[in-house]
Amino acid sequence: MNEFDMIERYFAPLTMGNEGTAGLKDDAAVVEVPEGQELVITSDTLNEGVHFLDGEAPEHIARKALRVNLSDLAAMGAAPLCYQLNIAFPERPSEAWLAAFSNALKEDNEKYNIYCSGGDTTSIKGGRLSVSVTAMGTVPKGKAIRRTGAQAGDVIVLTGAVGDAVLGLNVLQRGLDRSQYQGAIESYRIPQPRLELTELMHECVNAAADISDGLIADCVHIAKASGIGAAINLDHLEFSDEVNTALNSNHITDDEVCSAGDDYELILAVSPTRLTRALAELSKLKLKPLVIGEFKDSALGITIKKDGQSADHMIQRGWRHF
Amino acid sequence: MNEFDMIERYFAPLTMGNEGTAGLKDDAAVVEVPEGQELVITSDTLNEGVHFLDGEAPEHIARKALRVNLSDLAAMGAAPLCYQLNIAFPERPSEAWLAAFSNALKEDNEKYNIYCSGGDTTSIKGGRLSVSVTAMGTVPKGKAIRRTGAQAGDVIVLTGAVGDAVLGLNVLQRGLDRSQYQGAIESYRIPQPRLELTELMHECVNAAADISDGLIADCVHIAKASGIGAAINLDHLEFSDEVNTALNSNHITDDEVCSAGDDYELILAVSPTRLTRALAELSKLKLKPLVIGEFKDSALGITIKKDGQSADHMIQRGWRHF
Repeated sequence: MNEFDMIERYFAPLTMGNEGTAGLKDDAAVVEVPEGQELVITSDTLNEGVHFLDGEAPEHIARKALRVNLSDLAAMGAAPLCYQLNIAFPERPSEAWLAAFSNALKEDNEKYNIYCSGGDTTSIKGGRLSVSVTAMGTVPKGKAIRRTGAQAGDVIVLTGAVGDAVLGLNVLQRGLDRSQYQGAIESYRIPQPRLELTELMHECVNAAADISDGLIADCVHIAKASGIGAAINLDHLEFSDEVNTALNSNHITDDEVCSAGDDYELILAVSPTRLTRALAELSKLKLKPLVIGEFKDSALGITIKKDGQSADHMIQRGWRHF
Repeated sequence: MNEFDMIERYFAPLTMGNEGTAGLKDDAAVVEVPEGQELVITSDTLNEGVHFLDGEAPEHIARKALRVNLSDLAAMGAAPLCYQLNIAFPERPSEAWLAAFSNALKEDNEKYNIYCSGGDTTSIKGGRLSVSVTAMGTVPKGKAIRRTGAQAGDVIVLTGAVGDAVLGLNVLQRGLDRSQYQGAIESYRIPQPRLELTELMHECVNAAADISDGLIADCVHIAKASGIGAAINLDHLEFSDEVNTALNSNHITDDEVCSAGDDYELILAVSPTRLTRALAELSKLKLKPLVIGEFKDSALGITIKKDGQSADHMIQRGWRHF
């Protein structure tokens, strides 16, 4: 099986028969952006041993690589369109690996109504796999939800519990008892992009971000991008049973929960007049939204409360590569 | 300097002030595709030690990473729009490295009228840099030049001399005398995407490909994609003085010249009635087009002539990662 066979057998089916991709046999894909829509573009690279564990199962790598990008589209209020898949292999992958990887992507293509428009398959030295996805979505013109749109007075709504993903990572890395943290491991491996919120976001949300850089870091990003302050109250966070167990057993710290970068819930800036409706809609979608603070006038800066006290030292936390 | 500082200082200026990119501070970019246009998307990944030499200068890596993608846009008859830049660093780069890399990209952004719409900056284990670019262009609806469009009888036109890039690589890798092969080294390092042909292509060309997989391999790709045959006559190739010198000195072989994958000239399928005009236009653009064969009825298969004799054994050649 050479490179072209690999593409034909395992990657071409990911185009879902889309004509503009020419079965991945052309120099580039041709994609139509419907009239009245704008394109939303995002990229995320996942590297072995950094973004996923050495030797991680191909189906987990595949889903995570696509879904972290879908989470960015969700944060913009965009609907998925297509994606480019760039994989650098440290050695020739087995057919079993390729089958598992591409089957997982195919399932997600169907689940999220997206197709692979192209990419590049290369060899890389250094022994570690690298998967880079650039995902494209569409949004009605002028309707993208930007980080810059938050206003003083907007309520900070988090779309669910946090900490499960970083707990899952800790369990896998530190050899903790996996049986009691199955849900957390699943959360770490397979993000759930909040694409079901797109309609709600266009109606109720002034600004949004996914919290892939960490809950606090991404709240700060929205505040700074919008030129305003924020008061975040971490006492309003709620956790899954597993995260509560882990916090009580010192298997994870508060700090990790609030600053780790692998949760894919969204932070939404919701104007107070639309809050009731937004929370009701989120609940209808079977999410458990949490009101964790308020965006403030810039003069008030950014403040964090925890255990009823100031915890402003937590502002600087967040995942960084360098 | 942390990751966010790096992005702000060196990569945000590559957005060329484009508003939809929000200075690379949002989850994604918003890009408008003008009405009546379709999007053309392509990706290429360059890995250290595979696509460029270990320790290659940052300005060469930058230009090559962007330009190999621009070459794909050129082959589709598309005009550059924007690109996503995904870089995986094996260690924190120096400010000098980042400055050289980003300055080279900025110059090329201006030269080719394109901007950086986003990307991802990550750390990678294994000691080697990986740069992945996804470039987007636009083409009037229905006007993309596909590989599938060649027809029996179309003339195969190559837009220039080949072999310089692979010679440059050989010189650098095998320690040949660099002083006599300066042009070849430059060709290897800095591809020249043939974007100046876009207008001509829409008027005269039925199918096209860049020859990044190798001259013969890409002729075969067009023929197969179009469901036809081809008769390629390698005796019609012409070479630069440096390549001629190298061929005579056994610094490079015929085989390498015809199958190496680092030239970025285009192969064009031109219907005979438009050939005179196409060649005249190419010459006006200061290119030296070569007629190297003809696409044929599928029943005639694919044939290659060299030194006046059949050289069909060369059909299988071309760069492969696996």
